[in-house]
Order: sequence, then C-alpha cells, then structure tokens
Amino acid sequence: MFTCDFKDGVWQKPEITPYAPLTLDPSARVFHYGQAVFEGMKAYKDDNDDVWLFRPKDNLARINKSAERLAMPAFPEDVFMDGLKALINLDKDWVKPGFGNSLYIRPFVIATEPAIAASPAVEYKFLIICSPAQSYYSGDVRVLVAEQFSRSANGGVGYAKAAGNYAAQFYPTNLANQEGFQQIIWTDADKHEYLEEAGTMNVFFRINDTLVTAPTSERILDGITRKSIIQIAQDSGITVDVRPVKVTEIVEASKNGSLKEIFGSGTAAVVSPISAFSHKGELFEIPKQDKRYSDTFKEKLNGIQYNKTEDPYGWRESI
Amino acid sequence: MFTCDFKDGVWQKPEITPYAPLTLDPSARVFHYGQAVFEGMKAYKDDNDDVWLFRPKDNLARINKSAERLAMPAFPEDVFMDGLKALINLDKDWVKPGFGNSLYIRPFVIATEPAIAASPAVEYKFLIICSPAQSYYSGDVRVLVAEQFSRSANGGVGYAKAAGNYAAQFYPTNLANQEGFQQIIWTDADKHEYLEEAGTMNVFFRINDTLVTAPTSERILDGITRKSIIQIAQDSGITVDVRPVKVTEIVEASKNGSLKEIFGSGTAAVVSPISAFSHKGELFEIPKQDKRYSDTFKEKLNGIQYNKTEDPYGWRESI
Repeated sequence: MFTCDFKDGVWQKPEITPYAPLTLDPSARVFHYGQAVFEGMKAYKDDNDDVWLFRPKDNLARINKSAERLAMPAFPEDVFMDGLKALINLDKDWVKPGFGNSLYIRPFVIATEPAIAASPAVEYKFLIICSPAQSYYSGDVRVLVAEQFSRSANGGVGYAKAAGNYAAQFYPTNLANQEGFQQIIWTDADKHEYLEEAGTMNVFFRINDTLVTAPTSERILDGITRKSIIQIAQDSGITVDVRPVKVTEIVEASKNGSLKEIFGSGTAAVVSPISAFSHKGELFEIPKQDKRYSDTFKEKLNGIQYNKTEDPYGWRESI
Repeated sequence: MFTCDFKDGVWQKPEITPYAPLTLDPSARVFHYGQAVFEGMKAYKDDNDDVWLFRPKDNLARINKSAERLAMPAFPEDVFMDGLKALINLDKDWVKPGFGNSLYIRPFVIATEPAIAASPAVEYKFLIICSPAQSYYSGDVRVLVAEQFSRSANGGVGYAKAAGNYAAQFYPTNLANQEGFQQIIWTDADKHEYLEEAGTMNVFFRINDTLVTAPTSERILDGITRKSIIQIAQDSGITVDVRPVKVTEIVEASKNGSLKEIFGSGTAAVVSPISAFSHKGELFEIPKQDKRYSDTFKEKLNGIQYNKTEDPYGWRESI
C-alpha cells in the first residue's frame, strides 16, 4: 500500500509498504467528524501483459476537489502519479488479463489528528490500496425513484466523493431492497422532480435515439465514466442532451414507448443497464433492445481500457 | 475507554481498558463510506464530590436514532448505562468540581469491517472516551446567515449526529471565519429562507419576551439542551414558539428593535449568545440586554447539572 502523511502543513515523504492495519487514536477526527474522501479506479492488463490506467489524473483532480469541499489539503499530482505507478508495478501480477478482470485501486484520504473538536484536522493520511476485481453479472437491475429520501442538497457535498455521502444512502437502499429493488434513482431533495443519480452511479436515459443525462452540479458527481460516455456517444453521432431530467418526462417516455434504455455509469461496472423502475407505486419495464447503446459504450470503453483499440482521446496511460 | 464490538449479528462482551490506539484494516468501512455516529455528553461534580450525568438515556436514544439512519445496529441501553457509569467511576478524579468544569464524554460507533463495497458493514465498534473540559469564554460570537452553502436536505441525515454532517460544515465555516464570523446560521437548502441551526448548535431567538426556535425535523438535530431549555422556559412562564423561523422575520425584528437575543444551545457551552448576524452583506447587531434569557437558562440548567438545585424533571442521574 502507498501512504503519505500530512503534518506541519506539508505532505511528508511517501512510502510503499506491505498491506498492514492502521493504528489511529480513538479521537482521530475521521471517526468523529467524517473528514474522509476517496476515489475508485482500475488497472487493466492487455494481451502483452502491459498494464494500463484510465484517466488517472482525473481521479486525482477529483479527490482534490472533494478534499477542498471538506477543508482537507490537496495532494500533489506528481507524487500521486509516481506512487500509483510504482505501486501498480509492484502489484502487477495481481492484474489478471481478460475483459472484466482488473485491479481495483482505492486512493483515499482520512483525517488522523487526534482531537475532539469540530474543526478541520491539521494531520491527514493519503493512502492507495488495491484489490483484484472480476467482472460480475449483477442480474436485472430494478430501481426505485426516490420520493422521500434524498442524497444531497444544493450547497452541500453531493458532488464530492465524501465518505458520509455513502453511509447516508444505505438505509434508504435497504428499504428499496426489501421491496425488490436493487438501487435507488436519487431525485432532487426539494420536490423529487428531477432524476439525478442511480445508486452510486451517474444515470443515462435513451429516449428514441437521443441520450439524456443530468448536468453535473453541486449535487451530482462529475463521473469519469459519465464524461467518457458522453464523449464517445457524441463522436459516434449520437445526440447527447445534458440537461435536467424530469421524472414525469421519463414516465411519459416509458408510456409512449420512446424510452429505450436506462443505465448507470461508473468505474466498477462501466455501465449497469436498468430493466425497470418504480415511481409512486407504479412499475415501468424497459423493453429489451436488440442493440443497446449501453453495450456499445461498454465495448468501446473496454477497448480503450484494455488496449484493444486505438485511443484517440489519450485516456489510456501506461504504467 | 469503553469498547464493545458488534460481530455475527450481536454486540459482544463490552470491556473497559486503558486508553489506547485502535488498530483497523485500511479497508475498514468507516474510512470509505462514513458509517460513524457519535454523541457529546458531560459528567458534573457537586460539592460533595458526587458525580452526575444529565439525561444520559436521551443520548443513547439519539445515537441509536442516528445509527438507524446510517444502517448501523442499535446499542442496548442497559449495557450503555452500566458501561458509562463504570467508566466514569474509574475516571472520577478527572471530573473537577466547580461551574464550568466537567468531564466531556464522547460515545461513538464506527464501522470496522474491512471491505471495499458500498453497503452497510456487518462489524462495528462502540466506544466511549472521555476528556476533562473547562468552561471557556468564546468572546462575542458573530454569525453569518447561510445563503449559498447548506447543512442538510429534506430526506437526508441532518437530524443524525453523523460524522459526515460535520466535515461538510468545515469549508463554509472557514470562509465565514475569513470574513470575521465565528459560525454560520444554517438555512434550508432550498431557498435559504428559514433559520435552522447555528454552527453545530440549535438556535433560539428572543423576540420581545417570546422565545422562538425551529421545530426539529429531518434536517434539524433534536438537541437535548434545546429541549431542556424549551421545558425550563415554559415552566418559567415564557412563551415558547416552536415554528419555522423566517430570515426576513428576524431581520425585521432586528430593525424594529423587538429582537432581544439570539443564542445557540448545545452540550459544550449550554448556551452561546450571539452578538451580531450578517445577512446578504448587511450586519445586524443585537443590543446588550440587562437580564438575558440565555443567562437564566444556563444558570438553571447548570444548577440541575451540578446538583445545586432541585431537579423537578428527573434529568440528573447519579453515577
């Protein structure tokens, strides 16, 4: 694992050491005031056993954006990139080849300073840990449109990958699970009128041949898979409408047959097709498509990620 | 410190051990998904060296309410009360006598299970740690009425003492500090029309001789000091209006001279009088009062807490 401590106002010398438990004072602020941000990324192996990262600097930029919102210090890009590559090189054998296989990489930052006081810490730890990941088939994903609970507020921290945003979703998601839904599509906290994110993923709608997704905002995460899909769709000649998406519009589109697909996007599954959604007790099934946009996007993204195709965007980065 | 682990679906045997660092896997969910809730309470010593707690069961009820919202298991009241009393008895000498002195008590629960997966943990640790606390004079508290940032959303976790709620306040509070304000009065995330909490405290307004405070809600913490003050005020013949408080109303009251006091309430300071607030760039000073409600409430509450006066409510609990 990669670790680097923030102390006396500066990031100290980083280290790569064997994976081992952390020792923290019980008053470490992360336990009490939730100063904790993270990222999710992956390393992919091609047929020549070369290992690749996907837009890693975007992850660093985002963890720093998250950190700023939680009054935590930014981490330097060069130290991150050097440390990340050195770590993945050491762990190279854990990256298995073949579509679906990858090394999941988790950079995160926690407030380590021991002090029971509700103010920003002056000591932090930046870590990167890794774990082999396999492709999995999650089955039909059925989602519930949020009508009571919410994920984030205007002026809040919804756009940050802040630890607290995730714990807040567990209870409502448990309730949805009990009703037979795997995830929640989050709506605005105010009137639950607009569709914003699906579980921990960004969400896309295909209406006829147009791809629609909500704009990023204070409430919505600036997903790296999300923006890659938007780019690929546009370059494939697909019209992409980035605009607020009304629940009523999607209900209407489902009823009149123009709603062809809904899918979540994120690092873990690239895309996660949604087969049905429930709104105010009514269930709307998405008809099966012969040729789904979501499959095409996944194929194209995987092609770049696994070094199977050209990368016109410069997204792939060699270890 | 008091510790108790949750494993295999049940709380295990609790322990009291010397204060010592925690050893946690880097993938412990508290670091990544923010499952962490806490409480703040105090022990007070009277002139006979007897030690008292203040409404401790309310703290346990609230930590369990917070835990439920974050999909964490409830902690049993009898184990909590026995453990708390045993711990305070051991630490008795750290409770210094005299108004203002106390032992600050911090119960908290964290998700310890090692697993990089955004779902509720199955292993937790409940802890109680303590620290001697002194009364402090924080000086004139000037507050900024939030117009851009927000603390919580409808359907969110604002009513819970969830760790993530606090980290989210640091950055906006830093900005307020830079403008010369010690705290923010949070408003609703929707239109910033209603005054809800002051920093990490509940907030009261005295308009003429009426005490006004916002009702508890999904967004507002059910403060133990808050509800004690409401009770004491009512029993002192003061009219208490628990209702949504509009920013415009308080601005108007300040302009026409009917706004006599603003104060925050919480365990740390009991009450924290506010001397001025800023709204949309305009500063409103609160005129000094000869006999402030806030002083009376603090006196009466301290009287009960330090066993100086009768406790008609049964709030005081012997160790």
